[in-house]
Amino acid sequence: MTSPVNHRTTTTVVAPVLPSTGALRPLGLEEVTLTGGFWADRQRVNAAATIPHCDHWETRVGWIGNFERALDGTLVEHRTGREFADSDVYKMIEAMAWEVGRTGDPALEARIGELAALIGRVQEPDGYLNTQFGRPGQAPRYSDLEWGHELYCYGHLIQAAVARLRTGHDDELVAVARRAADHVCAEFGPDGRDGVCGHPEIEVALAELARATGERRYLDQAALFVERRGRGTLAPIEFGREYYQDDEPVRSATVLRGHAVRALYLAAGALDVAVETGDDELLEAVRAQYARTLASRTYLTGGMGSHHQDEAFGDDYELPPDRAYCETCAGVASVMVSWRLLLATGDASWGDVVERTLYNVVATSPRADGKAFFYTNPLQKRVPGEAASDDEVSARALSRLRAPWFEVSCCPTNVARTLAALGGYVAAVSDDTLHLLQHASARIATRLGDGRAVGVEVVTGYPVDGEVVVRVTEAPEGPWTLALRVPAWAAGDALVDGAPAEVVDGVVRVQRELAAGDEVRLVLPVAPRVTVPDGRIDAVRGCVAVERGPVVLCAESVDLPGGAAVDTLRVDAGASAVADGDGARVRARLVPADEGGAADGAGAGAGWPYGAPGTGGAGEAVDVRLVPYHSWANRGPSTMRVWLPTA
Amino acid sequence: MTSPVNHRTTTTVVAPVLPSTGALRPLGLEEVTLTGGFWADRQRVNAAATIPHCDHWETRVGWIGNFERALDGTLVEHRTGREFADSDVYKMIEAMAWEVGRTGDPALEARIGELAALIGRVQEPDGYLNTQFGRPGQAPRYSDLEWGHELYCYGHLIQAAVARLRTGHDDELVAVARRAADHVCAEFGPDGRDGVCGHPEIEVALAELARATGERRYLDQAALFVERRGRGTLAPIEFGREYYQDDEPVRSATVLRGHAVRALYLAAGALDVAVETGDDELLEAVRAQYARTLASRTYLTGGMGSHHQDEAFGDDYELPPDRAYCETCAGVASVMVSWRLLLATGDASWGDVVERTLYNVVATSPRADGKAFFYTNPLQKRVPGEAASDDEVSARALSRLRAPWFEVSCCPTNVARTLAALGGYVAAVSDDTLHLLQHASARIATRLGDGRAVGVEVVTGYPVDGEVVVRVTEAPEGPWTLALRVPAWAAGDALVDGAPAEVVDGVVRVQRELAAGDEVRLVLPVAPRVTVPDGRIDAVRGCVAVERGPVVLCAESVDLPGGAAVDTLRVDAGASAVADGDGARVRARLVPADEGGAADGAGAGAGWPYGAPGTGGAGEAVDVRLVPYHSWANRGPSTMRVWLPTA
Repeated sequence: MTSPVNHRTTTTVVAPVLPSTGALRPLGLEEVTLTGGFWADRQRVNAAATIPHCDHWETRVGWIGNFERALDGTLVEHRTGREFADSDVYKMIEAMAWEVGRTGDPALEARIGELAALIGRVQEPDGYLNTQFGRPGQAPRYSDLEWGHELYCYGHLIQAAVARLRTGHDDELVAVARRAADHVCAEFGPDGRDGVCGHPEIEVALAELARATGERRYLDQAALFVERRGRGTLAPIEFGREYYQDDEPVRSATVLRGHAVRALYLAAGALDVAVETGDDELLEAVRAQYARTLASRTYLTGGMGSHHQDEAFGDDYELPPDRAYCETCAGVASVMVSWRLLLATGDASWGDVVERTLYNVVATSPRADGKAFFYTNPLQKRVPGEAASDDEVSARALSRLRAPWFEVSCCPTNVARTLAALGGYVAAVSDDTLHLLQHASARIATRLGDGRAVGVEVVTGYPVDGEVVVRVTEAPEGPWTLALRVPAWAAGDALVDGAPAEVVDGVVRVQRELAAGDEVRLVLPVAPRVTVPDGRIDAVRGCVAVERGPVVLCAESVDLPGGAAVDTLRVDAGASAVADGDGARVRARLVPADEGGAADGAGAGAGWPYGAPGTGGAGEAVDVRLVPYHSWANRGPSTMRVWLPTA
Repeated sequence: MTSPVNHRTTTTVVAPVLPSTGALRPLGLEEVTLTGGFWADRQRVNAAATIPHCDHWETRVGWIGNFERALDGTLVEHRTGREFADSDVYKMIEAMAWEVGRTGDPALEARIGELAALIGRVQEPDGYLNTQFGRPGQAPRYSDLEWGHELYCYGHLIQAAVARLRTGHDDELVAVARRAADHVCAEFGPDGRDGVCGHPEIEVALAELARATGERRYLDQAALFVERRGRGTLAPIEFGREYYQDDEPVRSATVLRGHAVRALYLAAGALDVAVETGDDELLEAVRAQYARTLASRTYLTGGMGSHHQDEAFGDDYELPPDRAYCETCAGVASVMVSWRLLLATGDASWGDVVERTLYNVVATSPRADGKAFFYTNPLQKRVPGEAASDDEVSARALSRLRAPWFEVSCCPTNVARTLAALGGYVAAVSDDTLHLLQHASARIATRLGDGRAVGVEVVTGYPVDGEVVVRVTEAPEGPWTLALRVPAWAAGDALVDGAPAEVVDGVVRVQRELAAGDEVRLVLPVAPRVTVPDGRIDAVRGCVAVERGPVVLCAESVDLPGGAAVDTLRVDAGASAVADGDGARVRARLVPADEGGAADGAGAGAGWPYGAPGTGGAGEAVDVRLVPYHSWANRGPSTMRVWLPTA
């Protein structure tokens, strides 16, 4: 734990989260440039393909058009999309805003202005803004806090405005968002409606708006929403009030539960409130909830949410790989939470969670061309998925392969805003230390917490290659520290400049006096390794997975001889895996299936899959190629498994 | 396969299903009396408690009141219940009708008359009858075939009427149902609306009405509905058209899919149509679909339906015990299908399916006192369920323990009608043979297919005791055969009169000349046996279950030392189980859990449940009592497992 520093004195930086205090100060997009490799590639595709794709679809399905129809009076009859459709327009604007901050793209800047002007004209004089409620023929404002998503929509509007402020644009969008935020404070303040939104999001947004504007009342309102939740102001529903975290106050809950995205957005907001108000009790409560969630309700990929029915967490250790919901947005939200904990505490293990979730959830969602997305990210597919048409809107959970757009399309814009701001998660500073938190080729130029300028250039083929070379481009005068995160999966087995590194709390600290031109060479053990689950995770008992660095691998039927189903694979219990490109190879057998059951299972008669133990067939020995999970389903329909049964 | 006989010449009997032809003729409630034991006990509780309980609740929640409000003009504002609430009133009347047929209870007879009169007054002149549609202020008739359930409601009305006809009452209820059926034929006939109901049920009902009335046009209409389905007349929905089996014609489908109850009701209706029209192609199509469903989509309990989200079948081998939906109604519907196949083909293995499903799904639903019910029947509970209040309506899927009533309350009345008519599933006849299909203490007096009178008395402590004593009370003149079903789980290991029995196709045929007073003594091996799953069922890999005769056993935490969680249990791979009362005992260990994971799983650091293999702790050795699954949760909240991990 690095001791907290106060960041108030530092100038505003172009960062997706900017606490006023904490162990680490994040760097901004103007301080960190991704120069190549895994994430730079995805950021490029995001800018070139995904953001225009979102704009195309939001226009095509009429969600932007809803604002136009609000002006020409045809909205009530012709509104399109779900009750929260406005929010996807706002999330897209947020993505555009970070992209403008990163590249200065003038066409995107113009588009933001156009959209902001349109949205501004729809806002009512008192700041209320929503295309679904409040007009004659629509339900009244705030008549359905459970499902209406009005405050949720403001939240995303405000987050877009925060991105504008942090990228130097105090524009119309910011004015609209501030009017909305003022309206929320008036309407839901201490003397206003005693309610919360069925979908948390306003909390994190208001806290960030307070940071970006210096207006304390936004923080107070965020804190009020956090405290109000869990007191049963929302109606009971079939899924229980835990669905929207209104079953238990944030401060006394012990684990994340209910709808995963809701739970994680709330956790992020509560952390921001805790940090800004110095509320260590609240910080510790959320940290403990999230830690237990990681220990018992999280998939190997970092994915969260075990239930399709309510997009929710299951019980502890209820982690079925085939029905894993692992919504892409829950991955984004989990990064929001772990990143906040990393900044607040300096504990590098939160950087491990950020890394795992980025590589195995966020990176899995977009197709290689950036124009189709997974909404859910299961760890097993028994039946080859159907290809989604590139010209059709899909239902969210049943799309078998990545789809271009969804009836509920929260995920594409959430991925877009995350990838556009990704440089912000790479490094941070504390008093005399530059912390490299994610290993990616990048140019970094900033000031340490003590004000001294520092610059490095990172070159790496990570995560395929474990070597990370850090060349100092500007060295501060006097002693300073370069801190490199060593993930827990490395099990302490890292080299620095060829010698075993001293890893303390997941960090190697290089304290020799580094001058400009000096290089530090970190080597992480990214050779494939075999991983087993906790014995309480029933759904993957008797299975192993193979990981390669931070990347979870999987078997895909397109890589099996004759396209055999992956369910026939059996890995030797003691098998090891060897690296092969960005994946691995492992020795296994293909168990023949017969009418009486898989040869290694029940030997009962045909037609009933339970019985006395069978004899067990040997099966054909094969050398199976495993590929990164994030890359699966990019080669057409296939069956897929992360967890491979052992013989 | 026994060769088919034509039953048209036999007099109508009081039977829940009465095909005009088939390998076996079912016996009626007047021919079979359950005299004691497992099912007689449940039938008694059903009559004394469950049927009055249903009447109480249907009155209390206003579903009977909906018909009264239809008459006094207040229905549109004050209707209660879901769109299919009428059907639960009809299912209750069906239960009452079988009960009257069984016992002649005059109070129930009066209540049926009262309800029939009320319902009859609500019926419109053209036969239309529904409390949800068609009035000013309601949606128009048949404007929502996907979800409106109008034809489904008629289906249950008609099944109640069939029960009245078969029990000798051609009364007002029958007249109402016939008017409704005539209306359906007019409205949805060959020249009428080209549609089907989103929830199959009308098919099986119309086919049975044709049997009970001799009116061919009801059968033709049932056949038309079966043929129309799978042609996309229903709208596409998020779950896909497979949800309501409108994705693929019945004749060309290869497996049951989508909503389990819908799929099974449709299969039952299609079988009735196939049998009555001599359509062997259709019969074989449904048989094959159901057989594959049993081989790859059915739980050890006979339960069906793996998804909570859409109450649906999953993919082949997707059978998670914790999220098993196994709706009670799907169990009832599966019995409907397997019983029809048994009657049509004479293949005794369908009797195994009837038995397994009755003991482990239908019997599991009602609480011992008959006043609370499971809607879903999962095979594992990680967290002790909350007790449902006996005074509150529960949401269906989330009720942790049995609940008295549900917002969707299809299950209690479905159990009630099944238990009331249970005598009808015990025995059947063919030309010269009396078939004992379910082993229960009973008095049976009937005529063989060739017209000769026959009578037996069965005395048994089955399923706890494997001995079944059949005493002949009336012997036909000349040669005849007593056929006794020997379940496949007996693996041929049955004794008849002390000698190894010759089991052919799941049946022992006693062909020695049996005279009145003679006894046949069948002994089935009901000692506990260890069962393993097919290797393709991922969710229970590395686990065993213990069965005792037809009864699936489970471990319940109330039976563990100190109430330990069942998830800590590990059974020796080679362990055997010994009988203990109606359950068993098995040697196992309790694995200590620690922060780093269960001691037999990942040995990674605390806080992340995946890592390198751990060392494995020995654990405390215990002798664990296993109890019948159908009896679980009758002793307060507990955790529970059917499938026990091996060490």
